[in-house]
Amino acid sequence: MHILVIGAAGMVGRKLLARLVDDGGLGDRPIERLTLVDVVMPTAPEGFSGAVSALEADLSAPGQAETLVATRPDVIFHLAAIVSGEAELDFEKGYRINLDGTRVLFDAIQRANAEDGYRPRLVFTSSIAVFGAPLPFPIEDDYHTTPLTSYGTQKAICELLLADYSRRGFFDGIGIRLPTVCIRPGVPNKAASGFFSNILREPLVGKEAILPVSEEVRHWHASPRSAVGFLIHGATIDLERVGPRRNLSMPGLSATVGEQIEALRRVAGDKAVRLIRREPDPMIMKMVAGWAPGFTATRATALGFKAETSFDEIIRVHIEDELGGRL
Amino acid sequence: MHILVIGAAGMVGRKLLARLVDDGGLGDRPIERLTLVDVVMPTAPEGFSGAVSALEADLSAPGQAETLVATRPDVIFHLAAIVSGEAELDFEKGYRINLDGTRVLFDAIQRANAEDGYRPRLVFTSSIAVFGAPLPFPIEDDYHTTPLTSYGTQKAICELLLADYSRRGFFDGIGIRLPTVCIRPGVPNKAASGFFSNILREPLVGKEAILPVSEEVRHWHASPRSAVGFLIHGATIDLERVGPRRNLSMPGLSATVGEQIEALRRVAGDKAVRLIRREPDPMIMKMVAGWAPGFTATRATALGFKAETSFDEIIRVHIEDELGGRL
Repeated sequence: MHILVIGAAGMVGRKLLARLVDDGGLGDRPIERLTLVDVVMPTAPEGFSGAVSALEADLSAPGQAETLVATRPDVIFHLAAIVSGEAELDFEKGYRINLDGTRVLFDAIQRANAEDGYRPRLVFTSSIAVFGAPLPFPIEDDYHTTPLTSYGTQKAICELLLADYSRRGFFDGIGIRLPTVCIRPGVPNKAASGFFSNILREPLVGKEAILPVSEEVRHWHASPRSAVGFLIHGATIDLERVGPRRNLSMPGLSATVGEQIEALRRVAGDKAVRLIRREPDPMIMKMVAGWAPGFTATRATALGFKAETSFDEIIRVHIEDELGGRL
Repeated sequence: MHILVIGAAGMVGRKLLARLVDDGGLGDRPIERLTLVDVVMPTAPEGFSGAVSALEADLSAPGQAETLVATRPDVIFHLAAIVSGEAELDFEKGYRINLDGTRVLFDAIQRANAEDGYRPRLVFTSSIAVFGAPLPFPIEDDYHTTPLTSYGTQKAICELLLADYSRRGFFDGIGIRLPTVCIRPGVPNKAASGFFSNILREPLVGKEAILPVSEEVRHWHASPRSAVGFLIHGATIDLERVGPRRNLSMPGLSATVGEQIEALRRVAGDKAVRLIRREPDPMIMKMVAGWAPGFTATRATALGFKAETSFDEIIRVHIEDELGGRL
């Protein structure tokens, strides 16, 4: 089969590719061909023996979506987006990349469907940012989406398009509302949510990390490994079981920052915990106060999507996948 | 003040204009100027002494939204849309008129806002079609929008844009989710929902009407007079009270077809009821089964939006407004 990954150079995209190569296929079908696209040139995954096309391209550029769809991939993972902070700072760019980029892709598929019945599986990464405060805890599957950021708005709109285009039979779409991915590998970045990962990842390798909020803050997490698992399951699940409501809040772990820290203590000891420096940041505290504390994820769980059930497990996944299994 | 009505030739548009002229102003401000737009040439309302510009135009045509926004109306009523059935039959036209038409209007206002701080009040008519079966009864204000038509999808997307553009301060928007408007004046049309009005309007003037569903069907109604009242209230309400969740399910009356018929009997007697001919239509029955049975409309009611509380009242409103007050 032929798989197209849009947003292939990002953290989740690279981990997805590694997993696909490891698995040697998707579902019970071998992968013969990969097409990788991102705004920075994606790297071919190691160990893949099939054909790889890598492309540095902006999906919202004229003709780009048509070019990709012309290769008739069987499965499309659409992970590309500019992040929340950038979409908020640059109104025009956020709508162009996150909304129009997705819509031109969907419309290119619709035209291909009209031409020759082409109907790929399409896995779209949405976000819990489609929800906006005030929020109950836990958030039920039928709670309304009232985003308080342009990023969340763009994701919620793409969810609606995905459900309608799927209902009309243009493609077989599924929208995956990712929890905050924790522990993000790499170096501390400026994302407002970065501290959730920083306070674990940095102390695990003996480095200091800054905690800008109180230990009472509760949020919704899943590991990068689980995030990739959601995408794979979304690409292979029987969509008859999902029905017309194609956008699913994924399972995850609801935990306070205090619970994160206690898990770090159990896994890596007091020495690691002492590397967390409290530096309250009123702006980050205000933003985080509006974020989702947790979900029931009843439908996704019943449909077989799986995440970690403790922060100890999330930390162990990081140690296995990023630190070679050892502290 | 200057008021722009987009969709001014439609039933609700014409009634809104008549009400504005009757009231002699909007809130406590007199109306000096009206700009009326529709795809068919709108008629100036009788008895208005100010300036009227009427325009036959398609909002989605290049430059059209800019031209309208260049006149800097203080209040914009955006009522224009192609109906559910047509949006379902013509995929491209539905998205072009109902989604792109709205977005080019919003974007033209955004650019005007960036230029000179222009920030009009914008009242958008949404629809209970943003909800899709299976639905609880009653539907709470925080229930998710999972439309099962392209029309409902387009309305739900416009709601998200309206909330985000309002949050960013480009305009002061409010989305009004109209119940099914009953009794629609005029002649029976082919809309699947037409029978809700036909079975009352036609017998009231001694004509036969066809009932294609069972008397157990429950749906959500408000009179044309109430619909106009919602729009006027939406144009004048203090939006600080509404907060960031700008799209409101309007109050209405939840009634079964049987209850409609009993109200007709009380108001116009058995003779009128005998003019209703049962002709079950499996296709209409299937469509109607997915429609909203009723809402709590808690927020809108608390914010002062008002509708009828009995079908007797809805019928009396029709007799007063359409039949000169007499049967």
